[in-house]
Amino acid sequence: MNQDPETSNRAGREPISELTTARLSVYLRCLAELESEGIATVSSQDLAARIHVNSAQIRKDLACFGEFGIRGVGYSVIDLRARLRDTLGLTTTHAMVIAGAGNLGMALVNARGFNSDGFKVVAMVDIDPAKTGIRSRNGVEVYPLSSLHSIVKRETVEIGVIAIPGDSAQQVCDFMIEVGILAILNFAPVQIKPRAGVRIQEVDLRVNLETLSFHLKLAEDGKLVL
Amino acid sequence: MNQDPETSNRAGREPISELTTARLSVYLRCLAELESEGIATVSSQDLAARIHVNSAQIRKDLACFGEFGIRGVGYSVIDLRARLRDTLGLTTTHAMVIAGAGNLGMALVNARGFNSDGFKVVAMVDIDPAKTGIRSRNGVEVYPLSSLHSIVKRETVEIGVIAIPGDSAQQVCDFMIEVGILAILNFAPVQIKPRAGVRIQEVDLRVNLETLSFHLKLAEDGKLVL
Repeated sequence: MNQDPETSNRAGREPISELTTARLSVYLRCLAELESEGIATVSSQDLAARIHVNSAQIRKDLACFGEFGIRGVGYSVIDLRARLRDTLGLTTTHAMVIAGAGNLGMALVNARGFNSDGFKVVAMVDIDPAKTGIRSRNGVEVYPLSSLHSIVKRETVEIGVIAIPGDSAQQVCDFMIEVGILAILNFAPVQIKPRAGVRIQEVDLRVNLETLSFHLKLAEDGKLVL
Repeated sequence: MNQDPETSNRAGREPISELTTARLSVYLRCLAELESEGIATVSSQDLAARIHVNSAQIRKDLACFGEFGIRGVGYSVIDLRARLRDTLGLTTTHAMVIAGAGNLGMALVNARGFNSDGFKVVAMVDIDPAKTGIRSRNGVEVYPLSSLHSIVKRETVEIGVIAIPGDSAQQVCDFMIEVGILAILNFAPVQIKPRAGVRIQEVDLRVNLETLSFHLKLAEDGKLVL
């Protein structure tokens, strides 16, 4: 196990870097592509060239999941992907509830990746009684917020998604934690108070816009051809 | 200028790593927090501790914007933030159009960061005539898709957002490019074909879910207290 301060977090009890998990997700997406292209083995250099992370960083990250790359041959794509999926906890399906059946909640329940490969939205909840009983295009039903406890118990919900306006986000988040949800994805434009024993992930869509803006600026300055 | 293969991309003509721009966004968010806390200077070690990126990486990234950290003192928070905002092209406002006035489009037009600090949604377009004239909660109007050309010309639109189903995403993207949009943010569950001169950014919400799943798995394995 690498004892570098960043990677040793994984075995320790410190928070894990947002950027580390982002890298793992990027590796996983890249391996899925390699697998679909029928490529059997990949070197850290190949991975580095595909995703623009330096190969030393890749080797360091992957060494944490066990030393299984073969010098001069590289990694087995299938094995590495399976190992990463296991590391990321994607070999089981995580039940999710979305709080908020407005535009955002309805967009999320149908979103790419929200109902596949390790994740499943089992219900939506909303405080508006007029929304009770409505179903999303893909058939997920809206329940009153007061049903959250029984849904979480019945469906063993692990992940709660906050897709409601900022002013009630903290209250709904507190309720989710109270009924036993351990991981929360927050789309509301407020910072949710951290709580021991619960992981809160703030979604930041701006990073995507900033990436585009960065590229437009580089192109404008003649430093990059788009 | 650092000649490391990853960072030298910025001055070169190669694509820039998704993870590099993600780091710049994270630095920027952190600097905004420091500024709001009234902190005047920050060392690369302080930044490293806050965002869990190693300090050598931080110094390397920041050196690309000019050598202006002072050894033993660190960086001026205000100066560094201003420099980063300039680097990311956030000192001007980028006009955006959202294609698709469904749940996703309506959620995005109201989303945190989509109408502030460098970005402004000037219009939405939709193929459904019943949606023409509708306005979002924050007052952005829906126009027919056929108006795209005149809107882009009139408002100098730089960024297009694809918030429509996958089957028509490519077609709408082609239309956006045809009328002069150079940067596209794609929420549709299809990979848009790359085109010379245009930057396409695919939004991947799964990375957020995978981060939560990773933490749940570490907690389950007793390797992390959430």
